[in-house]
Amino acid sequence: MVRKNIVVIRVVTLEDQTLLRMHGDLIEAYYPALRTDSYCIGEQPRGVCDLKTKTLAVPKIIALAKKHQDADAIVISCCDDPAVEELREMLSVPVIGAGTAVSAVARGLGKRVGIIGITEYVPEPYRRILGDDLIDLGRPEGVTCTLDLMIGAGRESVLRKARELKAQGANCIALACTGMSTIRIAREIENSCGIPAVDPVMAEGLFAYYACLQSER
Amino acid sequence: MVRKNIVVIRVVTLEDQTLLRMHGDLIEAYYPALRTDSYCIGEQPRGVCDLKTKTLAVPKIIALAKKHQDADAIVISCCDDPAVEELREMLSVPVIGAGTAVSAVARGLGKRVGIIGITEYVPEPYRRILGDDLIDLGRPEGVTCTLDLMIGAGRESVLRKARELKAQGANCIALACTGMSTIRIAREIENSCGIPAVDPVMAEGLFAYYACLQSER
Repeated sequence: MVRKNIVVIRVVTLEDQTLLRMHGDLIEAYYPALRTDSYCIGEQPRGVCDLKTKTLAVPKIIALAKKHQDADAIVISCCDDPAVEELREMLSVPVIGAGTAVSAVARGLGKRVGIIGITEYVPEPYRRILGDDLIDLGRPEGVTCTLDLMIGAGRESVLRKARELKAQGANCIALACTGMSTIRIAREIENSCGIPAVDPVMAEGLFAYYACLQSER
Repeated sequence: MVRKNIVVIRVVTLEDQTLLRMHGDLIEAYYPALRTDSYCIGEQPRGVCDLKTKTLAVPKIIALAKKHQDADAIVISCCDDPAVEELREMLSVPVIGAGTAVSAVARGLGKRVGIIGITEYVPEPYRRILGDDLIDLGRPEGVTCTLDLMIGAGRESVLRKARELKAQGANCIALACTGMSTIRIAREIENSCGIPAVDPVMAEGLFAYYACLQSER
């Protein structure tokens, strides 16, 4: 496959180029056939962390995506999938949302899927795709934004939640915040619990890779 | 990623090495980080084409898989997922079934998924994963085994079925026979209908690749 161009849209305002490119860099590391360009929306330094900030982000994401229709795929790197449905109706380029990708991969790995996110609610794609097979025990204690994940107490809280979900019958964990990818906690969950845990950036990259493969002529 | 070893189990008895290796060769072409070894079950020259032949195949697949637990992943290359659940309970190596992989990928691509297979019934993973979002209009006319796919009339019949499914509201096609991969009809469906079509061997390879990525330490 010729190397493909993926546009990664970050739903948080980031000045720092390393932070901006972080998800794209992970995608390139996981899938060497993909190269990425990263862009972010303006005026949302706290990103998308509830329904209000999601609604606010949608038109900004649409405007950004429309400018990059020459990409081989566009990834909206957020588990809430803001603007994904709207863009799929609008554009002919494949549009991938992290939430749909994680839920779909989890669906293929386990029959009962535990969710770990940072929002009060279960993001829409997880509800839609996992339905009655989803186990939701709420947020990890003390974790309300991605910054909380960066500290030891946050990590431990996520691992504890994973063990609780397994005890409730989950045979797979679907992570529901791309911040979980930044701290690379999926493998730690797998080691600690012995069940697969789906990493959001790895999953969105997987669907981008699939879209590129299938479009090869 | 270090190149990974994938064991591909074919559920049809094949003497010809090129035919035996065909799915493995496609997986290697799609995912250059994977190398494959292919094995097949004995005494089933017509493969798995109904519930009776599926039941017959299960203990043979289990016996084969048990011999190859040193692989990085085991792929059961059949959309009916014979023995997949049993093996997942039994072994610690990731076990991937084509049917689960196709259904999960389709779940990520479209909201209403049309199925095209060669059996009288909808294979279990498609029913389980796609549920009420599945559109089933029965087999393509004149297609009852993979050999029928090899001829022009069979191809045309599959394309006609895809158009019927789209007219019924499908925005994605899930192929339900790995013979569809051999004839590489997914891209033709996409070109003809303008909606994504999920290729079984590409999907099972995708999940094998994901399993290998996630297991990297």
